[in-house]
Amino acid sequence: MKAAIGIDFGSESARALLLDIATGRELATAEHSYRDGIIRGHLPPPDADVNLPTGWILQNPADYVDALRHTVPAVLATAGLSPDHVVGIGIDFTSCTMLPAKADGTPLCALEEFRREPHAWVKLWAHHAAQPEADRLTDVGAKGYGSILDRFGGKISPESFFAKSLQILREAPHVYRAADRLIDAADWVTWQLIGSEIRGAGTAGYKALWDGKRGFPPRDFFASVDPDFEDVVDAKMSRDILLLGERAGALSEHGARLTGLIPGTPVAVPCIDAHCSVPGAAVTSPGRLVMVMGTSICHMAVDGDLRPFEGAFGIVRDGILPGVWGYEAGQPAFGDMLGWFADGFAGATHHERARAEQRDVHAILAEECAHVRPGSSGLLALDWLSGNRSVLLDGDLSGLIIGVTPETTPAEIYRALIEAAAFGARIVVDRMVDAGFSIDAIVACGGLPKRNPLILRIFADAIGLPVDVGNSEQAAALGAALYGAVAAGREAGGYASITDAANVLAPAPERRYEPDPSATVVYDRLYAEYVELHDHFGRRSGTMKRLKDLRNEVAGARSRAPHNGKETS
Amino acid sequence: MKAAIGIDFGSESARALLLDIATGRELATAEHSYRDGIIRGHLPPPDADVNLPTGWILQNPADYVDALRHTVPAVLATAGLSPDHVVGIGIDFTSCTMLPAKADGTPLCALEEFRREPHAWVKLWAHHAAQPEADRLTDVGAKGYGSILDRFGGKISPESFFAKSLQILREAPHVYRAADRLIDAADWVTWQLIGSEIRGAGTAGYKALWDGKRGFPPRDFFASVDPDFEDVVDAKMSRDILLLGERAGALSEHGARLTGLIPGTPVAVPCIDAHCSVPGAAVTSPGRLVMVMGTSICHMAVDGDLRPFEGAFGIVRDGILPGVWGYEAGQPAFGDMLGWFADGFAGATHHERARAEQRDVHAILAEECAHVRPGSSGLLALDWLSGNRSVLLDGDLSGLIIGVTPETTPAEIYRALIEAAAFGARIVVDRMVDAGFSIDAIVACGGLPKRNPLILRIFADAIGLPVDVGNSEQAAALGAALYGAVAAGREAGGYASITDAANVLAPAPERRYEPDPSATVVYDRLYAEYVELHDHFGRRSGTMKRLKDLRNEVAGARSRAPHNGKETS
Repeated sequence: MKAAIGIDFGSESARALLLDIATGRELATAEHSYRDGIIRGHLPPPDADVNLPTGWILQNPADYVDALRHTVPAVLATAGLSPDHVVGIGIDFTSCTMLPAKADGTPLCALEEFRREPHAWVKLWAHHAAQPEADRLTDVGAKGYGSILDRFGGKISPESFFAKSLQILREAPHVYRAADRLIDAADWVTWQLIGSEIRGAGTAGYKALWDGKRGFPPRDFFASVDPDFEDVVDAKMSRDILLLGERAGALSEHGARLTGLIPGTPVAVPCIDAHCSVPGAAVTSPGRLVMVMGTSICHMAVDGDLRPFEGAFGIVRDGILPGVWGYEAGQPAFGDMLGWFADGFAGATHHERARAEQRDVHAILAEECAHVRPGSSGLLALDWLSGNRSVLLDGDLSGLIIGVTPETTPAEIYRALIEAAAFGARIVVDRMVDAGFSIDAIVACGGLPKRNPLILRIFADAIGLPVDVGNSEQAAALGAALYGAVAAGREAGGYASITDAANVLAPAPERRYEPDPSATVVYDRLYAEYVELHDHFGRRSGTMKRLKDLRNEVAGARSRAPHNGKETS
Repeated sequence: MKAAIGIDFGSESARALLLDIATGRELATAEHSYRDGIIRGHLPPPDADVNLPTGWILQNPADYVDALRHTVPAVLATAGLSPDHVVGIGIDFTSCTMLPAKADGTPLCALEEFRREPHAWVKLWAHHAAQPEADRLTDVGAKGYGSILDRFGGKISPESFFAKSLQILREAPHVYRAADRLIDAADWVTWQLIGSEIRGAGTAGYKALWDGKRGFPPRDFFASVDPDFEDVVDAKMSRDILLLGERAGALSEHGARLTGLIPGTPVAVPCIDAHCSVPGAAVTSPGRLVMVMGTSICHMAVDGDLRPFEGAFGIVRDGILPGVWGYEAGQPAFGDMLGWFADGFAGATHHERARAEQRDVHAILAEECAHVRPGSSGLLALDWLSGNRSVLLDGDLSGLIIGVTPETTPAEIYRALIEAAAFGARIVVDRMVDAGFSIDAIVACGGLPKRNPLILRIFADAIGLPVDVGNSEQAAALGAALYGAVAAGREAGGYASITDAANVLAPAPERRYEPDPSATVVYDRLYAEYVELHDHFGRRSGTMKRLKDLRNEVAGARSRAPHNGKETS
């Protein structure tokens, strides 16, 4: 028996998957919830008196190490395998999650002197406090470095590596100076395993403006952003970038003690979590659009050719799979939108039923809205609760619901929100087809569609394409294990390439949802209305922006008394 | 002590009010809930096996008689007055609520042979199954009888008297033939009191196309609608119309037995319920806009001059007060919209708190949303859940919410719905001002604003006008009592005119809500956005209509939705 381990580092927990690399059988999985989890509001004890501003979302790197300590021995124990059966290790990570560290890899936040300094901690991908820095990078990029922005929809994201790094420089220059290294958390965890610093192409390409041909942007780009930022790459990063599918190194003595595995075990170059779902879902060639459905929806596709399309906010060669162009688009609100509605707006009767039947309120809404026929509610929604991250690339847009009547039910709105997400996805598909992609099917990954199959039915019908859903709920961890099997190499029973590994080991879809033509014919008409609303509010009307401007102005004047109106008796 | 009684016949119950006509003091009130209430779905027992189609809403006239029997003795007993203190009786009624009767006043549904025939029962104002008949009347009215439609926004409502009458003729010709009389319920109850048939100008003018100058439309109008409808007025109605403020007659022996009052007591010409709130709120001259806020909002104003304005759907001289033009506009969704949201969409926590604190969920939402500052939610809504009945006069429009984010709370949406209603009202005010009205203040009536004063604060701020609210929760019943005091006449201690009675007896507003300029300046900007959405979806975009069309096609329903708009009541 030869096995590989994949470890998927998520926002709240890490999951390890032990894979038989001869048969593709999942031998065991284990999950470890981070002790400090998602840190917001204030630092964890004993420093809980240090408050964090709005938009700050941090993590504790010690949680990642703990996850290695717990999950790897756990999957071996469950499967009854000894460490010598493990021939390769792969990891994937949320992105861009990054931290400042000393030259020996010690995170700054682990040092007593920086413990109470928020900028010394890990900035989780969802940390959204670096918008001014993102805007600065975009402004400079647009002035003379236009091609830097071309592959990113023309805008640098506040989630990106340099926005977060620049925020450290601007707001905590002492932390920036003390940081010998600024490093992606995926690369940092790999460092803990192999004992030496590496940098993987996934994050570098998608989150740090790196490009296999031109490398990072030139020094004068960073100097224009801020004179003190000029040498960020040369002083605190590395220009040596390893490609996906390559071996990062071998497990060190320290890494072996952490994991209980054997020193020298090959460790793969780490991968962005969503991207790992692509080989994890057995997608290694053009023709299928992978959607990872969770809090948000991440759309991914690969193609041998460069085919920029409106809405792609990440186009990186070798970024998703080695040797091909990787394309990423997205919808920022999905699971959180459904959760927002189910938790806050499904009425008392739904919650009472959920409690009485010991079921999730989503399950009850889904059950009810399975009986709502397409078009029958008269409702239509725009799924822009967190802005639009596909063709409109505009964070100031907002959600909309139209067609409300006194008969409108919570289940109908719940369904309209799912339909809105499906129409948003259909817009992406349409733009890809316009750009020359041939999309034959959608491949749905993530726990959400598995738990709520109605989503898959609605997506198939509303987009008019078959939707495949895999039988692994751990497509990302599986993809990481595939990279582990590639890192092992053929001589050790592994594989020569991620394509080979995925073709042999990744399971075929468990189920295909074919579109129902009688539903699609109705959805075609609803989609035409969606496109009209999309273009009206996304391109022509300034209503959404003006409402947000007003909201921000009012919020900025919050110190004033709520009401000066007089009431006379 | 001289007193008048006003009886307000609502949809679910009737309320009597005993008024000291020297001082205006409310001596007693009493309410009686109808046994059969609002009849929908099926007839009441023992005929519950007779199902009613969608849109059918009936009542049992026996409930009105029971209400007289219970409420009049109850107010006398409570006040400790004997019947000889009562010098006049007035009533008001929902409208247009109508029934077929025999020549002696017996309702057809009270006859054994017609008991199981739905068309023999009272059609409540909210009965919405006569849309095709309303369309037919509109079509004929527009072809050569255009001036008939001028005062009604160009459309005959399915709630109107002739739409309901024509539905009887078309769907149950045997009932139509058996009906010696087709009569408004207000006139029918007056008949029970005085022993002879009368017809009042309020319903005739607002609901039956009657006009003080030209009377009813000509016979050839009705013949064009349907040859068998030609003599509907002459055969089943009356061309003798009594004006508001006139005496309908004197209490008969039968009426005296019903009520416990003394035979010969003067009975006033009945009034439409909302219209009774005008004198009930002490409004007898131009300058103030009366809003009755309940399930829907009814806007009413009077003026000496004819000033047609866009959005007025009822302009009748002598229709609201004698001697002046009465103007009516409306918003069909208000209390029902707030109820729809609070019942179905306020989340579990709100309902749990309401239960724990034994409070209404509305009170909790209102408390929360009192802390939401104007503009701070970034939300805007269109209050067209039941269509638009003011300037757009379009029942196929629907509700909309824009600006939704994952942080949007139920309280914020609740507030946005109230603000949308206020903006809808502001559109009416603007059109009236355009037409030459001078509106200095709004007068709010109805139980809803009394229970939820936040509504008054938001209306004042969002419209930018002071809002007065009375201290009687029974403005309609009070108005009816004022008509009773006028029917009594000056010789009996009563009044010469409704204006005199209202000026002396109707209480001044209890409280005035002045607009807060710092809120209004924000609302001015939100209102500009409201107007843009209003004009886009109401005049330019066909989205709402197409969504309803699709809904109706899918539902397999009639291709046109029943007009959801509500009128007075």
